[in-house]
Amino acid sequence: MSPTPVTFASPVAPAGYAWEATTEQVAARYGLAPEAIVRFDLNTSPTPPAIAARVLAEGRFDVPISEYPPSDYRRLVEAAATRYGVAPEEILVGAGADEVLDLCAKAFLPPGGVAVVPIPTYAMYRVLTEQRPATVVGVRRRPADEGWRLDGEAVRAAAGGADLIWLCDPNNPTGGGEPAGAIDALLDGLVADAEAAGRPTPVVVLDEAYAEFVGRDRVEWHRRWPNVVAVRTLSKAYAVAGARVGFAVAARPLIARLEPYRPPGSVSVPSVAIGTAVLSDPAARTENLARVATERPRLAAALTALGWRVAPSVTNFLLVDFGRPERAAAVAEALLRRGLVPRTFGAGHVLAGHLRFTVRAPAENDRLIAAAREIELDSAPAAAPSEGGMAR
Amino acid sequence: MSPTPVTFASPVAPAGYAWEATTEQVAARYGLAPEAIVRFDLNTSPTPPAIAARVLAEGRFDVPISEYPPSDYRRLVEAAATRYGVAPEEILVGAGADEVLDLCAKAFLPPGGVAVVPIPTYAMYRVLTEQRPATVVGVRRRPADEGWRLDGEAVRAAAGGADLIWLCDPNNPTGGGEPAGAIDALLDGLVADAEAAGRPTPVVVLDEAYAEFVGRDRVEWHRRWPNVVAVRTLSKAYAVAGARVGFAVAARPLIARLEPYRPPGSVSVPSVAIGTAVLSDPAARTENLARVATERPRLAAALTALGWRVAPSVTNFLLVDFGRPERAAAVAEALLRRGLVPRTFGAGHVLAGHLRFTVRAPAENDRLIAAAREIELDSAPAAAPSEGGMAR
Repeated sequence: MSPTPVTFASPVAPAGYAWEATTEQVAARYGLAPEAIVRFDLNTSPTPPAIAARVLAEGRFDVPISEYPPSDYRRLVEAAATRYGVAPEEILVGAGADEVLDLCAKAFLPPGGVAVVPIPTYAMYRVLTEQRPATVVGVRRRPADEGWRLDGEAVRAAAGGADLIWLCDPNNPTGGGEPAGAIDALLDGLVADAEAAGRPTPVVVLDEAYAEFVGRDRVEWHRRWPNVVAVRTLSKAYAVAGARVGFAVAARPLIARLEPYRPPGSVSVPSVAIGTAVLSDPAARTENLARVATERPRLAAALTALGWRVAPSVTNFLLVDFGRPERAAAVAEALLRRGLVPRTFGAGHVLAGHLRFTVRAPAENDRLIAAAREIELDSAPAAAPSEGGMAR
Repeated sequence: MSPTPVTFASPVAPAGYAWEATTEQVAARYGLAPEAIVRFDLNTSPTPPAIAARVLAEGRFDVPISEYPPSDYRRLVEAAATRYGVAPEEILVGAGADEVLDLCAKAFLPPGGVAVVPIPTYAMYRVLTEQRPATVVGVRRRPADEGWRLDGEAVRAAAGGADLIWLCDPNNPTGGGEPAGAIDALLDGLVADAEAAGRPTPVVVLDEAYAEFVGRDRVEWHRRWPNVVAVRTLSKAYAVAGARVGFAVAARPLIARLEPYRPPGSVSVPSVAIGTAVLSDPAARTENLARVATERPRLAAALTALGWRVAPSVTNFLLVDFGRPERAAAVAEALLRRGLVPRTFGAGHVLAGHLRFTVRAPAENDRLIAAAREIELDSAPAAAPSEGGMAR
């Protein structure tokens, strides 16, 4: 019943991460003011926490900006340990979750190795795997009508020869979370399979970038599964993506394997201070979580009412299925013309017929809703009935 | 005549970069106030440029801290291109020179490959090479009495099977610069050797972290040598180490090979603004360069007058030869007790008998001089005459 894992050859010149046009490029292309552009593509937050601005304005840093940050990021590590409910030595700091993922690839994925990547998911896992270079074993998730959830059996079947398994829960870019107990069952299964086969359990990197949106503040995976590295970030719930701060949380032996790869100080001095502050200030994330909790259902309902097929989301973004890549591209173009930047998926991507939208501030979401309404009105007469049906 | 290149086996678990104790650790260990500690180990600057503080206080950023930096770092790239006299597309941004070096290793040094590392030099080249994993071919520099200059013949001899050559000029941690024309002759030689042998010229990563201290603001290597990647940083002459901003400057084909490895945004939003500002403000570096130009000879003369063997330096730091590792360790300990942190070199390091000192603010340098005087007075009676002679 499970789909066959799809294996991709590792290219000689690996592809990098692809991002949307910059705000200035969009403004120039469509003759708009840069201030008029709203980015719905980055899953960031419209407003930084008040404490972040205060830290910057007051310059409350460990050291002057002429010095490197403390090499052990002590205060930041302690703030993260307190927030996540772990010991400081179970934490490793990176310049955003992206650097943490890179360090995981370096430490746990040997060149020529194999990594399992559920599809679709965050593009960086595949990029980092191919850049080792190592082989990606792609495993399709269950279909959209099953919430794009992980196919645990397929992941286990693919994990046999794998060094590393990349998981993301809640998953980006689909927006759903795994059913209760599903990750636990998968992790138990991976251990059981490895024991039965007499081989080491692969390292599981569990990217929890969006975990706070489902109320998972604490990190406890590593207590039961010493092969799990949880990855956390301050870019999403904590609303300071521009600080570039992320963490690995794992049992001490895995952190010790990551540490030699950590650069002496990739996180800037202001970012260390901002990170420490937002982790220590409950208001920093609660206000943002409250905004998302209100705006996500409102935005989803409004877009659904226009006929857009919005996937259920537990995160700060919505995945919308337009049925055909051409239709998704046309909607994206129409939105860009109005200064609204969606996340697109390239030709050949499993989600090529989809767009992804960040849940932003109320007024920004209103602009998206208004634009969607105009687009639907514009396109209604032109669409052939059968195609119109598909797209909705 | 040239020393035989020394080859190190690549360890399975590579060593990471080793740094000195943190300020808080030193303070706790010696019962001092953290404010009383002065770091002479990091080759940073005592005072940030005024414009950096202004940018932070005014929050003049491209985007709020809740957003990622612009994915193309456009303003920062343009400021760097103007400063270095190159085209924007000849620049790649990293989170400090350290990330740029890491990207170079990823792009130009395949796992199982070979890199040439002149010894002694910045420790990170060896760390990054071994972590690929790739093999380090170490080539000893000419001896101290020849200014630790590169042994060009030995580098050429070692370059035969190499994918990458790590060069650093002026060199850290020895502090000297190559004689005029020496790098040019080496680069020409590497091209000639490769052509004669019918193989590709290895990529040369030329780390110019300290180039501004010898008046090299422009970057022009890549015009004559398309295989050279120059690495620049804002951590040294520009006095904003805490911003973590560095650059690769190279001909377009090499930048294009680096680009897929660049993470979407490793440089923080405040750092992008600070970097753009200091590159555009001549005062940002000229004040710092003037301080070093005054303080370096003063500090060197004062330490030399105490009998310390100070290597000639063109940078913002001084290498001091204490003859024996035990003596260097004793001086380091005596300095730490006084709250002054030198750069030490571990047992087995070519410079194990040395310490390295950053040229800091006048009052801080005065503390170092006073401490050195006390240490010499303390140790004079205890030292046997023959050993005392060696140590000086």
